[in-house]
Amino acid sequence: MGNPELSIAPMHRICKKAGAARVSESAAKVLAKELEGIGVKIAKEAIDYAMHAGRKTVQGRDIEIAVRKVMGR
Amino acid sequence: MGNPELSIAPMHRICKKAGAARVSESAAKVLAKELEGIGVKIAKEAIDYAMHAGRKTVQGRDIEIAVRKVMGR
Repeated sequence: MGNPELSIAPMHRICKKAGAARVSESAAKVLAKELEGIGVKIAKEAIDYAMHAGRKTVQGRDIEIAVRKVMGR
Repeated sequence: MGNPELSIAPMHRICKKAGAARVSESAAKVLAKELEGIGVKIAKEAIDYAMHAGRKTVQGRDIEIAVRKVMGR
């Protein structure tokens, strides 16, 4: 997947936001890796929607519909 | 949800990694917001697993199992 795109500090903050008392370094690293993977998956779907609409530019509405598909909601 | 935790630049890079030719600012913003929401959801599940195991610290393996649950895989 190449270099990681998401840094560790925001992962700690996301876990705190969710209510975590303590978050290990490994948890933050795994979350960064997994969220990046989910992000790529969403972006790939969004690209398909943009292309289907005859656009080369991925827009916010493409991401929204892609999230619904990837998250199965 | 409070202040956004994920910045916009890595969202552009994630979309490029997925193969996007061009990515609008709105797409990057929506992706940041959605990924944070998914991250909080994963973290909440992970906290449940950690507590169930009698730990106050969320660890990498809690995140891994939480991702499988949230992503339905």
